[in-house]
Amino acid sequence: MSTTSQIINQAVKELTKPESYKDMFHEHSEGTPLPSGTVLAEIVDLARSILFPGYYGTSTINTETLHYHIGVKMERLFSLLVDQIMAGLSFSDFDQTAAFAAYSQTTINNEMRRIATDRAQKFVSLLPEVRRVLATDVIAAFNGDPAAKNHGEIISCYPIIKELTIYRIAHELWKLEVPLIPRMLTEMAHSETGIDIHPGATIGEYFTIDHGTGVVIGETCIIGNNVKLYQGVTLGAKSFPLDEDGNPIKGIPRHPILEDDVIVYSNASILGRITIGKGATIGGNIWVTQDVPAGAFISQKR
Amino acid sequence: MSTTSQIINQAVKELTKPESYKDMFHEHSEGTPLPSGTVLAEIVDLARSILFPGYYGTSTINTETLHYHIGVKMERLFSLLVDQIMAGLSFSDFDQTAAFAAYSQTTINNEMRRIATDRAQKFVSLLPEVRRVLATDVIAAFNGDPAAKNHGEIISCYPIIKELTIYRIAHELWKLEVPLIPRMLTEMAHSETGIDIHPGATIGEYFTIDHGTGVVIGETCIIGNNVKLYQGVTLGAKSFPLDEDGNPIKGIPRHPILEDDVIVYSNASILGRITIGKGATIGGNIWVTQDVPAGAFISQKR
Amino acid sequence: MSTTSQIINQAVKELTKPESYKDMFHEHSEGTPLPSGTVLAEIVDLARSILFPGYYGTSTINTETLHYHIGVKMERLFSLLVDQIMAGLSFSDFDQTAAFAAYSQTTINNEMRRIATDRAQKFVSLLPEVRRVLATDVIAAFNGDPAAKNHGEIISCYPIIKELTIYRIAHELWKLEVPLIPRMLTEMAHSETGIDIHPGATIGEYFTIDHGTGVVIGETCIIGNNVKLYQGVTLGAKSFPLDEDGNPIKGIPRHPILEDDVIVYSNASILGRITIGKGATIGGNIWVTQDVPAGAFISQKR
Amino acid sequence: MSTTSQIINQAVKELTKPESYKDMFHEHSEGTPLPSGTVLAEIVDLARSILFPGYYGTSTINTETLHYHIGVKMERLFSLLVDQIMAGLSFSDFDQTAAFAAYSQTTINNEMRRIATDRAQKFVSLLPEVRRVLATDVIAAFNGDPAAKNHGEIISCYPIIKELTIYRIAHELWKLEVPLIPRMLTEMAHSETGIDIHPGATIGEYFTIDHGTGVVIGETCIIGNNVKLYQGVTLGAKSFPLDEDGNPIKGIPRHPILEDDVIVYSNASILGRITIGKGATIGGNIWVTQDVPAGAFISQKR
Amino acid sequence: MSTTSQIINQAVKELTKPESYKDMFHEHSEGTPLPSGTVLAEIVDLARSILFPGYYGTSTINTETLHYHIGVKMERLFSLLVDQIMAGLSFSDFDQTAAFAAYSQTTINNEMRRIATDRAQKFVSLLPEVRRVLATDVIAAFNGDPAAKNHGEIISCYPIIKELTIYRIAHELWKLEVPLIPRMLTEMAHSETGIDIHPGATIGEYFTIDHGTGVVIGETCIIGNNVKLYQGVTLGAKSFPLDEDGNPIKGIPRHPILEDDVIVYSNASILGRITIGKGATIGGNIWVTQDVPAGAFISQKR
Amino acid sequence: MSTTSQIINQAVKELTKPESYKDMFHEHSEGTPLPSGTVLAEIVDLARSILFPGYYGTSTINTETLHYHIGVKMERLFSLLVDQIMAGLSFSDFDQTAAFAAYSQTTINNEMRRIATDRAQKFVSLLPEVRRVLATDVIAAFNGDPAAKNHGEIISCYPIIKELTIYRIAHELWKLEVPLIPRMLTEMAHSETGIDIHPGATIGEYFTIDHGTGVVIGETCIIGNNVKLYQGVTLGAKSFPLDEDGNPIKGIPRHPILEDDVIVYSNASILGRITIGKGATIGGNIWVTQDVPAGAFISQKR
Repeated sequence: MSTTSQIINQAVKELTKPESYKDMFHEHSEGTPLPSGTVLAEIVDLARSILFPGYYGTSTINTETLHYHIGVKMERLFSLLVDQIMAGLSFSDFDQTAAFAAYSQTTINNEMRRIATDRAQKFVSLLPEVRRVLATDVIAAFNGDPAAKNHGEIISCYPIIKELTIYRIAHELWKLEVPLIPRMLTEMAHSETGIDIHPGATIGEYFTIDHGTGVVIGETCIIGNNVKLYQGVTLGAKSFPLDEDGNPIKGIPRHPILEDDVIVYSNASILGRITIGKGATIGGNIWVTQDVPAGAFISQKR
Repeated sequence: MSTTSQIINQAVKELTKPESYKDMFHEHSEGTPLPSGTVLAEIVDLARSILFPGYYGTSTINTETLHYHIGVKMERLFSLLVDQIMAGLSFSDFDQTAAFAAYSQTTINNEMRRIATDRAQKFVSLLPEVRRVLATDVIAAFNGDPAAKNHGEIISCYPIIKELTIYRIAHELWKLEVPLIPRMLTEMAHSETGIDIHPGATIGEYFTIDHGTGVVIGETCIIGNNVKLYQGVTLGAKSFPLDEDGNPIKGIPRHPILEDDVIVYSNASILGRITIGKGATIGGNIWVTQDVPAGAFISQKR
Repeated sequence: MSTTSQIINQAVKELTKPESYKDMFHEHSEGTPLPSGTVLAEIVDLARSILFPGYYGTSTINTETLHYHIGVKMERLFSLLVDQIMAGLSFSDFDQTAAFAAYSQTTINNEMRRIATDRAQKFVSLLPEVRRVLATDVIAAFNGDPAAKNHGEIISCYPIIKELTIYRIAHELWKLEVPLIPRMLTEMAHSETGIDIHPGATIGEYFTIDHGTGVVIGETCIIGNNVKLYQGVTLGAKSFPLDEDGNPIKGIPRHPILEDDVIVYSNASILGRITIGKGATIGGNIWVTQDVPAGAFISQKR
Repeated sequence: MSTTSQIINQAVKELTKPESYKDMFHEHSEGTPLPSGTVLAEIVDLARSILFPGYYGTSTINTETLHYHIGVKMERLFSLLVDQIMAGLSFSDFDQTAAFAAYSQTTINNEMRRIATDRAQKFVSLLPEVRRVLATDVIAAFNGDPAAKNHGEIISCYPIIKELTIYRIAHELWKLEVPLIPRMLTEMAHSETGIDIHPGATIGEYFTIDHGTGVVIGETCIIGNNVKLYQGVTLGAKSFPLDEDGNPIKGIPRHPILEDDVIVYSNASILGRITIGKGATIGGNIWVTQDVPAGAFISQKR
Repeated sequence: MSTTSQIINQAVKELTKPESYKDMFHEHSEGTPLPSGTVLAEIVDLARSILFPGYYGTSTINTETLHYHIGVKMERLFSLLVDQIMAGLSFSDFDQTAAFAAYSQTTINNEMRRIATDRAQKFVSLLPEVRRVLATDVIAAFNGDPAAKNHGEIISCYPIIKELTIYRIAHELWKLEVPLIPRMLTEMAHSETGIDIHPGATIGEYFTIDHGTGVVIGETCIIGNNVKLYQGVTLGAKSFPLDEDGNPIKGIPRHPILEDDVIVYSNASILGRITIGKGATIGGNIWVTQDVPAGAFISQKR
Repeated sequence: MSTTSQIINQAVKELTKPESYKDMFHEHSEGTPLPSGTVLAEIVDLARSILFPGYYGTSTINTETLHYHIGVKMERLFSLLVDQIMAGLSFSDFDQTAAFAAYSQTTINNEMRRIATDRAQKFVSLLPEVRRVLATDVIAAFNGDPAAKNHGEIISCYPIIKELTIYRIAHELWKLEVPLIPRMLTEMAHSETGIDIHPGATIGEYFTIDHGTGVVIGETCIIGNNVKLYQGVTLGAKSFPLDEDGNPIKGIPRHPILEDDVIVYSNASILGRITIGKGATIGGNIWVTQDVPAGAFISQKR
């Protein structure tokens, strides 16, 4: 046996010992793969070309044949989404919850498919509303940037629209209690744009972020209408309480509330469950950990 | 009809109502698609392998056969670029400007192709100069980083070279008044490197940015030779005047001027049409909104 | 000859003049291509699916057939890696060092292949240890984020795990003195996550970074166990000494040391060869250039 | 210069001498490529999935959403076909015919696009009739093979249906005087099935060929309804008259006429402009060069 | 509405009328696609690389790591095959047979998956025997061709081995009563090699066909050991009895029996349920419709 | 362990027993893969686009930039061919011949690379002559078919040109004593066209075959200039002498000689080392095993 084969065989042996892979191995139920980044990327592409017809996708479409294209894409989106939600449910050990304790794996699979179908149907029904809100975001981005030439440029190029398209989809799936997939989606957007919005955050209409790289918006943030952020802004948690075992307690509101018409300049950090009042302006590079009254202007001392 | 089909058909119906898609739909002139991200990515790859032969592209080339490779790539780059410029012109409603009011669509298309060909020819002629300037950027990056081993490592790995290759191409297209494409290109670079340089910015030779993530350089910036930035630096606008309808006025100089030999440390923000004088140094994490004299050193108070 | 052909031929002529391409052209030894970004991406995918079985890769695997999958992937990883290390050695002018002065190209190639094989074998043997350490990073990320639901979500989504998987691989190759490839790998991770960790940095177990965009960790950093950073943190050099020719001196320790249990909040910059003592906490948006004692808490004045 | 480079450069030099490539080089009009085998293959796939919904193409379709799929495929088929007909017209030196002598290249291109669009529109309108006739061919294949289990098996597997789908499409394009493409299509079918039907041949309904390999049906054949052939049958020309320069005269009827209900067994050759009368049967492995009366049975003597 | 859109919409309307597509449309049970040519091609590739390790597939394998490769390929083959058998069963209206009359669709699906799994398991167990028989075919091809240099050339190039690999796989699936797929497989081989062997035919060991194009071997043929055919040979049916409705009666033995050691030269046709006795030789280009005694030599009269 | 895993593991175990795979396994020298069908297909595509510029390959080329395209393709063809010839030599156990008995594997590899480079260089030098001869074949095909419209149609569509392009390349490699690859190439052509020409056959200029399916031309055939065949013609061996062990003796002339200007009609078989004299015509469906004098006409009796 060659040295190389010996070394490979030895490494394989170590890496297949259960004690080696125990926390790093996901053994899914038979026939149920994990949610797939590749498939989610296709779902995002389908959603983009449905929401912004003519901007995404290769076809040259016109208003008379638009329904063919949206119909085909919608059907495929639905079909892919059902499988991905199934995979997400399966991943979350949904099938090992008490509700299913008495059932066979076949019964569980059928029930999970029913649930996945139901949530995918609801999601599809929400797309017209998602488009309506995204249209307000396009207007906000255009109004906020003197360098922008027209709405088409915003839709084609601006990272905030790429980000919000994914965030607003992910947020709907989050509200439908689809496990794992919302986070995978927003991390895909994070990688593409450098903007990290947790799918659990609540964000109003006419929202925009200029440039965007480095922005962080935490899980329990609540953002009103007509809010504008600049690059590098953090809307984060100040600290989080531990339970008696020293583990962080999940699900406590710990990120800021920004009321309507707030502006936050670049690299500012707003931390903790505080409220930035309607129309307040937060200057750049500063660190805010207490409530700011409506209409106030807070800036770095120099 | 199954429930799923009903739901899909209903969503398609809503999403194809003109009032739903009105601002989100790009219906292009017959046969003229939008500029394509995929094609632009190929154009960037071609340009990289022309500008840095042997570094990009799969072939193993040598000096004796180099001209074959550059010739083939140049011809393809030219051909793709003509189509993309056509698409950009078409997108910008160039064909609906007054100059064309009296002409048939066929005449307009022919004229747009003539213009696109002319601009692509000019662009091709500029590539040797683009390479010459990029060579100065490679030297600047090497001199600025003690961790760099050789020029080859800079060209192969450093995000600033990936960024500047695209920016310098996009800037030439911007000067040739090609619509939309320069912005699409720099946003591709932004996504890849986290550095956001507007294609309208003017940047001298021997320019470099260390690490780079989070840097923003605005549309009307003017940067001299031998300037170095660090990650997170913003060269932005402080505010922008509104016209009488409350909309931002486009095209006003509103970003800083950095003269030769300026250094700006990480996360500093320089805002507004101010001038940072020759050889000045701006410390990290600070907020600069007024002129800085030549040779000065400005830093965070602590 | 058409105008276009004339222009293309002229540009090709200029771009193939040796004085034009001299610093921008990599002419490798016959038959030895450069390390390839595409192949390195495949190596990363293989390593991920070996280290986290069931999370990456398309197959639905189970414990009984796991060894087949890891065996095939390991063999392919090994084979690709030998070629890439060869390419890296060749790129670094390793073959023109004094040690090889007396030898024919054939002898040199054989010797380089022997060295590449040896290093790839060592790398393969290290993978079980790499997995062991990554498991501690997963735990750190989970404990540090109240929004995380389970370890699987951390492995599937969190940028820090994507980043550390690549960094820890790259760091092993760096210690094996493989040229160029470690930097190419960490820049791939930088592009994906916005986190820029130099492969030469030394990082202990249970390490995590929250959100991550904009973080920079320099070449000579030394980080203990159980350290946590937030987005935008820089662990950088303050300045670097020049040699008598005015060039930066390479290889001098110039980045900070962070002892065990240190926390650094968002956008803080820690610069120079200083030591942040065990258990110290550095607040956000500040600039630290001097030693910080163990257990201290340093924050922005306001 | 290395020996290899010298040899390559020498061969390139010889192969780019005009006298070397003169008959082997197709220089098309600017911007007009040749018809493309790859695109024609996509057109065939689109046509198959329109004509036999559910059998070809990856989607799982149902009657309620069928129109979306057929609509999208039809639009793409139309768009690809217009370009391919353009390319075919251009290839055939259509643009150098007398009709165009007085026009500019731009005028010619516009006129060719108008013609291509017109023919593609006609083709699209013919598809329902093409499907109707193919349905009779499916029935004929099923009735003629005791091994067939159902119509679906015929559509999924039988080479005659693959062949006839392409032939019937190609024949319509032939009748629309589209140059080159009909022949390219039938040669694609020939390569796939071993059956060589010239697109100019006229073939009635309920036609089938069992097994098929080696069958040849010439350009001027006329075949009635309900005819069946077996593998290896030739319906060819016996000889062809030469013009005064010794070149074959094009376009003369020189292949057989098979009236309704004829059967021809394997490897029989029927040659020349003869008529095989209604209901005649031709035995295997024989050579027929004279008219056969209706109802006759002709077989190999032994 | 443009003329083109009108024409497309009209054609789509006609093609989606139920009376237009009625026999040409396969509407499968929900979620159950048709067997896929692409997937079957992958199954064939997997089987080839399992049966002939080192000849097919891209990896460079050796005896020490062979089990990894065969293991991975086998697991994937199994998984693909289960789905394809499911699709085949579904296609054959298996689920509408009397046996299932009383069950819900869910129960039927589960039962079909159980059956598909069972047949795929049986198939996997048969692969060692398939390899054993194919090894005899390799020897027969080598012994029968003076132009062959070694067994490796036979395995790499010879169409008969490509054909028999697929036929022997398809025949096992046929015996396991898998619907549709065996025919799809042998038609794939027919297209590749020009040899048309029905999967129902029974063929002994040490079988070979020289050149092969045009050979037809019918469903109920029985071929002994050590038989050799040449190109263009037909082993077909002479005629087939009709039932009282005039339809061919399915499943009746109607093709020849060839006993051991028979040779049939090129383009001979052997038709009907006749027996060619042990060791008989049939000359080229002849038509045989009656039994031939053992050891006889039959040839064309001239 | 699940039943499926048990069955798979058992089948893998049987299939990795050395006695199971012994003749079916190709274990190549370390790092030397088999010649690859995929790479050979790319070589054929490259050769086609070099020999027939403008007909194959996607680029729109013109005479002024033609040398770039041919240069790039030639360099890639050369590089791929060297590796394939290496693989072919290695496959043929060339390295285990007596000439190499005394050498190390490294020395053998270097020597094989030298030989492969030498043969690939010779091959490249022969391409201009290959193109010259193929031009005569195009003329022959055009003159022989009244249905052909122009030379371009012949080059684009006719199977005989596809076949002869590959055969003439394969024949040059055969004469250069490249192992295995010539046979792999002609079998690729056989699969595509149904025409089986052995690469060892010698074929003059102005050669054509009409339709072609089923034609067989054996290894030791010698064919003069201006010869025309029709579909289904066999130029084969009558029988072949066995050596004293009962194995066929390799390399004996055993196929026919066709002198200049011979025509052979469809499905005729010409067998054995006989000579068909200059200008003779052989009728269809007949069996010829004896010399035919110059100018004779031989046909089927009826």
